[in-house]
Amino acid sequence: MSKSRTGDPVAVGILGCGNVGGSLARMLLEDAAGVAERSGVRFELAGVAVADPTRERAGIPAGLITGDAMGLVRDRSVEVVVELIGGIDTALELVSAALAAGKPVVTANKALLAEHGRGLEALARASGVDLLYEAAVAGAIPLVRPLRESLAGESIHRVTGIVNGTTNFVLTMMSELGSSYEEALTEAKRLGMAEADPTADVEGFDAAAKAAILAGLAFHCDVKAADVQREGIASVRPLDIEFARRLGYVVKLLAVAERVDRPVPKAHMPAGAAPGEQATASAGAAPGEQATASAGAAPGEQATASAGEISVRVHPAMVPASHPLASVRGPFNAVFVEGAGCGDLMFYGQGAGGLPTASAVLGDLVDAAHHLRSAGASYIPERSPAVIHPPEDLWSAWYLSIDVVDRPGVLAAVATVFGDHGISIRSMEQVGLADEARLVFLTHMARQGSFMGTLEALKGIDAVEQIGGALRVLGDVP
Amino acid sequence: MSKSRTGDPVAVGILGCGNVGGSLARMLLEDAAGVAERSGVRFELAGVAVADPTRERAGIPAGLITGDAMGLVRDRSVEVVVELIGGIDTALELVSAALAAGKPVVTANKALLAEHGRGLEALARASGVDLLYEAAVAGAIPLVRPLRESLAGESIHRVTGIVNGTTNFVLTMMSELGSSYEEALTEAKRLGMAEADPTADVEGFDAAAKAAILAGLAFHCDVKAADVQREGIASVRPLDIEFARRLGYVVKLLAVAERVDRPVPKAHMPAGAAPGEQATASAGAAPGEQATASAGAAPGEQATASAGEISVRVHPAMVPASHPLASVRGPFNAVFVEGAGCGDLMFYGQGAGGLPTASAVLGDLVDAAHHLRSAGASYIPERSPAVIHPPEDLWSAWYLSIDVVDRPGVLAAVATVFGDHGISIRSMEQVGLADEARLVFLTHMARQGSFMGTLEALKGIDAVEQIGGALRVLGDVP
Repeated sequence: MSKSRTGDPVAVGILGCGNVGGSLARMLLEDAAGVAERSGVRFELAGVAVADPTRERAGIPAGLITGDAMGLVRDRSVEVVVELIGGIDTALELVSAALAAGKPVVTANKALLAEHGRGLEALARASGVDLLYEAAVAGAIPLVRPLRESLAGESIHRVTGIVNGTTNFVLTMMSELGSSYEEALTEAKRLGMAEADPTADVEGFDAAAKAAILAGLAFHCDVKAADVQREGIASVRPLDIEFARRLGYVVKLLAVAERVDRPVPKAHMPAGAAPGEQATASAGAAPGEQATASAGAAPGEQATASAGEISVRVHPAMVPASHPLASVRGPFNAVFVEGAGCGDLMFYGQGAGGLPTASAVLGDLVDAAHHLRSAGASYIPERSPAVIHPPEDLWSAWYLSIDVVDRPGVLAAVATVFGDHGISIRSMEQVGLADEARLVFLTHMARQGSFMGTLEALKGIDAVEQIGGALRVLGDVP
Repeated sequence: MSKSRTGDPVAVGILGCGNVGGSLARMLLEDAAGVAERSGVRFELAGVAVADPTRERAGIPAGLITGDAMGLVRDRSVEVVVELIGGIDTALELVSAALAAGKPVVTANKALLAEHGRGLEALARASGVDLLYEAAVAGAIPLVRPLRESLAGESIHRVTGIVNGTTNFVLTMMSELGSSYEEALTEAKRLGMAEADPTADVEGFDAAAKAAILAGLAFHCDVKAADVQREGIASVRPLDIEFARRLGYVVKLLAVAERVDRPVPKAHMPAGAAPGEQATASAGAAPGEQATASAGAAPGEQATASAGEISVRVHPAMVPASHPLASVRGPFNAVFVEGAGCGDLMFYGQGAGGLPTASAVLGDLVDAAHHLRSAGASYIPERSPAVIHPPEDLWSAWYLSIDVVDRPGVLAAVATVFGDHGISIRSMEQVGLADEARLVFLTHMARQGSFMGTLEALKGIDAVEQIGGALRVLGDVP
């Protein structure tokens, strides 16, 4: 066994010195002995590359700071490179150079991985070194290593994550304090939990990059952030959250990666739905659509999906209050994994923050160091191209709120639109009166394309003033 | 990189063919190609050793079955040994023989590891091979590898687990359906979720072995099952669970491994408690005890603990409903980890069952196979002897229910006993009247020794008919 406890120190070069880089550098400088005792590896900080080397960095000797990132990567004494500068182009250049030079790389850069993961993995494989990125998804939570190693032999069906702390904080405030979306977002900014421009978080771009990475890990395929179907949380209203609560649900922004070549799970079918019932529901649909709908509802098969197709998406959804993801509150993250052998698993913890993220990077560093000494590397499976299932052919139960003018015949007009698109309504409730009237619907399982068609058509009805929240319902409808 | 995708198959010998062994054998026989595609390793089942080789085993060719376990271990063609026979003596002999012969071992045997873990790890280290046991704690949940690898550099404070599915099922039934302990246990037996003799589960022996393993992983020390302070759930009454619910708590059987040389966390101190308040609480205590109590309550320090001491214990406790562990229902398991860098993490999933446990074993097999090819092995830290903190010096808030005769002066007599032992009562409530009267108490933070002394003394009071549930309260008292 070549992983000696008394080996030479392992020299680490860190690119970037923000929250995470700074925390990591201080960890390596201040707790080197503790880390060595626990992990068997003594690290030596060789340098920290920053954009402005003249600025002082708390706790880091000036002699370790450099403005020359590529120089640090190429420094022959540097054995492992940690990339924490973020962004794509420069990071790609630096990470590629390190891997090509046979140096293992640890990175937390989700954007880089979601765009160039496959190519970088091929480079790492060719060089026989590690490319580790535990911190890129769900911060401190050990998730990437369990997916890559513990579940390496497992056949995974679906990964469902709350992977963006900002939106989960906003939705938690709306749920628990009744805040409006704007109030909650303002508070998140005040607490430093949302950026001044929160677009990347609230529009789901951040979660989409993580969903792409999760899909790649779970299904060994190449998914880019742009392949991810994406909806943000800006259209979610307190009304929707309150209604969800009354029905026993919590609204969460979910990142979902799933195989759609699998049987439709029972929990995703309307309770007690028989093929006949589904046929009724689709009565108004065009002939082609009808066939799809009936086949999709037949137990044990979703006829529209060919083998190997996956769906990768980010959207708000109603999660049953009894589901483990429902109790993930505030800035916490969690990822729920469903597999053929392992059953249901969930990994929970802090999704961001300098110290927690640095802790995940440190775990990767220890792994990389052990591998360096044994001249090995983590196994990186080949990725096949992803075949994305057409989003319009996905099935789900839906929640929808619309603002209407309260006058006779409105419900009939609205219900006709649902029927024309082959969507069966499970329940309807009117909230408020006159100018404040809102209709709240829950549907049976419906094809996404048909549901979206319904939304479009509803906009054409005079009495419909505004389309409010449209939320997928996770699991069975009560 | 020596981990070729096209390497020779890896020959596996399985010892034991119960639920887990049978599931694993069928997985390797029926899904070899799928496993190979996902993990990069093609496994070949070399043999399955069983006690009765004449019995037919569904899905496993008779030619693979053998009655000679040691022969299978010594078979030169067998490269990895999976030990699933359970028990200690025979398993120890077989696992030792495999490791001594330079063969990696994967085991799910918690009793063996809790008793001989340190010696077996030394043997594995000396032979430079893996000893992997993901399935020994919390079944399918990837937990051991994250603790060993992802958190290798992390300084862990505390690990708190729901690691016994039988007791969690029983407590969930009592909580959600109002069942009595006996009714819930009968139902658990009927569903095959409790053994005919449930002692190992309900008395906490199973959880204690797992707590010992978790302590060893988290603190790199040698803890045996017998070192674990252990209380079962038999004394928990529906009354206690209902009272806990009204206070915002859920009753769970917890396995706890924690450092006690750390500051008392704020959440474990009575809300707003100042040293002066605590001193008042301890007013009736003997001088020596008084000093301990005041020191223990001083912010930032627990004076009675020397550096490096740990506490490892299993007991029922009241868990705040908002705590992630509170929502772990039925037969599910979860382990909550608190660390200096990583913050709060939780790992959730199925704790038992043939297929889920086999899935965890398969993950270990994949790891062992990759290491075999690179002639490496997982890093195994040295373990130091455990220094167990005296349980009587642990601090906690407590819940207690006692059955009393409803007559004037009883509360005064009972309260005097609390006071005499230096325990401050936070709240008291009488439930029922006359012969059915019960007193329900919540205390401020109290020394375990003092609380236990209180229980003993209460038994000496005429009007006290029965001491009911005594439960530690996790976190702050509302």
